[in-house]
Amino acid sequence: MQLVPVEGFPEIRPGDDLDALISAAVEDTLRSRDILVVTHKIMSKAEGRLVDLNTVEPSALAKGYAARWGKDPRQIEVVFRESRRVVRMDRGVVISETHHGFVCANAGVDASNVPGEDTVCLLPVDPDRSAARLREALAQKLGVEAPVVVSDSFGRAWRFGITDIAIGVAGMGPLADYRGQNDPHGYPMEASVLAVADELAAAAELVMGKTDGVPLAIVRGYAYEKGAGTGKDLLMPPERDMFR
Amino acid sequence: MQLVPVEGFPEIRPGDDLDALISAAVEDTLRSRDILVVTHKIMSKAEGRLVDLNTVEPSALAKGYAARWGKDPRQIEVVFRESRRVVRMDRGVVISETHHGFVCANAGVDASNVPGEDTVCLLPVDPDRSAARLREALAQKLGVEAPVVVSDSFGRAWRFGITDIAIGVAGMGPLADYRGQNDPHGYPMEASVLAVADELAAAAELVMGKTDGVPLAIVRGYAYEKGAGTGKDLLMPPERDMFR
Repeated sequence: MQLVPVEGFPEIRPGDDLDALISAAVEDTLRSRDILVVTHKIMSKAEGRLVDLNTVEPSALAKGYAARWGKDPRQIEVVFRESRRVVRMDRGVVISETHHGFVCANAGVDASNVPGEDTVCLLPVDPDRSAARLREALAQKLGVEAPVVVSDSFGRAWRFGITDIAIGVAGMGPLADYRGQNDPHGYPMEASVLAVADELAAAAELVMGKTDGVPLAIVRGYAYEKGAGTGKDLLMPPERDMFR
Repeated sequence: MQLVPVEGFPEIRPGDDLDALISAAVEDTLRSRDILVVTHKIMSKAEGRLVDLNTVEPSALAKGYAARWGKDPRQIEVVFRESRRVVRMDRGVVISETHHGFVCANAGVDASNVPGEDTVCLLPVDPDRSAARLREALAQKLGVEAPVVVSDSFGRAWRFGITDIAIGVAGMGPLADYRGQNDPHGYPMEASVLAVADELAAAAELVMGKTDGVPLAIVRGYAYEKGAGTGKDLLMPPERDMFR
């Protein structure tokens, strides 16, 4: 299996034709059965998911929490707006469930890698739809059948450091389900559903780096399961979630 | 970056000289500056970390919980013995902090890929020490300087499916710390500490599979940070843990 970073990608602005720009950037490298991993931020930017904090009027809750922890109340307010449920709120952090169903710090609202000091970037409205649209464009413009994984960096409970995970998926099953199969000793593998799309996003992060401005990577040689899976398949169903 | 599975590795039994067997298996492929990812299970087996459940006398708590959820009380008892703190206990699952400090389901006690119906496999006593010993053996036997990552499959809060993470590390810094650096727009990247050893373990899992009996993979072309880091660096410090 190989991971190939796509270098020299331009800075994206709202309204840019991202699918065309990505297609042009990978036309010499992407092959059918490769997987294209895309950091969500370029999708968010192209889709105009940027907020000028000067336009945000913080609520009393946002003001109080921000004052207590030395945060920007306008940014806390944006986090609340991007959330449908707060899971934890302490030490200046808000861990919440976004409107998509992702549980993460600050609802994915991020001030890094965004132009403008008072601008923050939101998650795409529908990362699966963004992934599907790009996959379709790659098929149409390049004649290449390649699944698309949209990635973001999430923290984890109990573990230090962030890792990239998949928030949008198109063209592949994001899980490898071994349940019902036996291990080499004949023992059924009950707990073995692997979140392979998350592992693909993590692998891709290793060739992207954080400061290098590499928002695209190609995974070659991974035998993914063709299918109509989405990033939603990677969310723990509420009835099985022990950490709501 | 490339990921190369090491195939044809033999079944490991307690007392096997694992370092010699691994060195022999990778002598034609492993180069200096590669990273060797090893699933913990072969280390656990070689180190004799197998428990015959017929020797286990379950406590009243283990019996009651197992009866309620249709589990094996002896296996629950082993989970308790491998734990220093229970984080959640519901729906037949025990999520606990192991003696090492890992928070995971069933304290890493696992019945899959283990010979014998009544045998379970524990985590290595000290995965960092196991990693360091293997790294030393690779240097001595093959003259190769390669970091070692010991992996296991962990579930995650809020996300469905398991992913491989690093429980032991030798010869590299497991974190890539971008704090204090600026993004391309000059904005400081506060939250950017990447758990790259976990991402390496995740990437390696993609070429190992679950049923194929491939317990070793080589990562080539990742510019890791040389250093004396350990798997413990990947644990959230208790004072920062919002999900104890």
